[in-house]
Amino acid sequence: MSIQPNNTHYTEASIERIGVDGLFYAYRAVGRPTDVPLICLQHFTGTLDNWDPLVIDGLAQNRQVIAIDNSGIGCSDGETPDNVQDMAVTVVKIITALGINKCDLLGFSLGGFIAQTVAITNPHLFRKIILVGTAPQGTIALHSFPQLAGRAFAMEPVERYLYIFATSSEKSREKIKATLDRLMARKNDRDKEISMTAIQAQTKALTRWGTDQVTLDLSMITHPVLIIQGSNDEMMNSDSSLELYRQIPNAILTFYPDSSHGSFNQYPEIFVDQANSFLENFL
Amino acid sequence: MSIQPNNTHYTEASIERIGVDGLFYAYRAVGRPTDVPLICLQHFTGTLDNWDPLVIDGLAQNRQVIAIDNSGIGCSDGETPDNVQDMAVTVVKIITALGINKCDLLGFSLGGFIAQTVAITNPHLFRKIILVGTAPQGTIALHSFPQLAGRAFAMEPVERYLYIFATSSEKSREKIKATLDRLMARKNDRDKEISMTAIQAQTKALTRWGTDQVTLDLSMITHPVLIIQGSNDEMMNSDSSLELYRQIPNAILTFYPDSSHGSFNQYPEIFVDQANSFLENFL
Repeated sequence: MSIQPNNTHYTEASIERIGVDGLFYAYRAVGRPTDVPLICLQHFTGTLDNWDPLVIDGLAQNRQVIAIDNSGIGCSDGETPDNVQDMAVTVVKIITALGINKCDLLGFSLGGFIAQTVAITNPHLFRKIILVGTAPQGTIALHSFPQLAGRAFAMEPVERYLYIFATSSEKSREKIKATLDRLMARKNDRDKEISMTAIQAQTKALTRWGTDQVTLDLSMITHPVLIIQGSNDEMMNSDSSLELYRQIPNAILTFYPDSSHGSFNQYPEIFVDQANSFLENFL
Repeated sequence: MSIQPNNTHYTEASIERIGVDGLFYAYRAVGRPTDVPLICLQHFTGTLDNWDPLVIDGLAQNRQVIAIDNSGIGCSDGETPDNVQDMAVTVVKIITALGINKCDLLGFSLGGFIAQTVAITNPHLFRKIILVGTAPQGTIALHSFPQLAGRAFAMEPVERYLYIFATSSEKSREKIKATLDRLMARKNDRDKEISMTAIQAQTKALTRWGTDQVTLDLSMITHPVLIIQGSNDEMMNSDSSLELYRQIPNAILTFYPDSSHGSFNQYPEIFVDQANSFLENFL
């Protein structure tokens, strides 16, 4: 176990590496070491640099927060799988290699697919789970994910980010633009950008989450779960979070107004308050 | 203005009275006086003694909280109207008589109907609004409210309380039983119990909220709104809160798991954290 223990701010946390089966996986840790750290699983195309430092620092006030890069993402070795199941296996290996035997999970979008999976395959490894901007297997909106990704990649980077993470309202765009500014503020020790090969594999994995046969029985998730979604998430279809909430027995569901796939980045103070309350006070 | 300023705990707050048009209305105030106090509007049959002191004390940590009895309820003078519109007029008169020109509102159930109404008739009087276990006008579940109330009144008091406010799960019943214990702990200076006349008028008002013509355009509510509902509220139909959320432009919606009409009493710590975060940090 080699978790860097004492970073106060995510922007000051350097990239660490943990070895698993001869491969090295990248992560950043922030906050005091705690018995139950929070592991963060990232969205499509995202690396360690795509976690809003305002959110991570807020969550790290009372616990250690560890963001990890899956196989072939950022500075992690390996190939990016074209399916969520293999990504989930890697997550469990990384957590185990870090010497953690109980943690909380924050899964954002694709990271939320992985979180749902490991909650069922390795239930004892997890205490509580936060799912942001995500959806259950079989979500029809994901059938056309390649088309949505194609439209996004045709845009210049700032507009692409706003297209995915903001609504069309001026207020939402301004707040998500502020998120993007926070993501770009870091100049040193940035993670490696995602490769085209990894993007293609992730695109297939996201699409398959919608089109493949449903294999997970979400009613088996007995952990306390906090589900956060924006009012207008085109990628996941916001109503998918209602489906998660209806299938997971012990879940809180919250929708934020006038927000898209970047719901928790658009309301960082509200999200941090709610997530901390959930992690500390929800029984 | 005669608000009692310095009670730290709701159970120590005595019943005060404020005069309006020759009638006196009962209220209790707790917490340090603040520029924007929180006014609490009570549910069907509820008096000042039906606010969970754990919730009120939690909300009063950083603000003054004032619970009021509407016309003909508890120690308030007057007759209980058979419609929400007249109750709303009284609320505005009481707030104005207390010398308040800007406040937050917490409306629970019937109190939430009143909150929706005054948010539209007197928008400038309010800053933020919390709606718990409530529903928009026209909610079909309320068409059979007299039957539901009839079933409830056939039960002995503890079972009646659990029937309305808890689900059938042991966990929910235990938590709501704990709420009831907190409500009953106060021995001195209790409010007057509701009269049969007032119950009949309120039953009519609740039913009419479902059956009368829809007159309120909820899209006109421009205040930040926090909507809280249980997963299994038979009285209001939980999905009614989705309707509120979809019609009110700037609303957060949260569902709590395995809970009924007493959602915020079943999760008092989570609710207090979320309400305080909303009142202090939501823009």
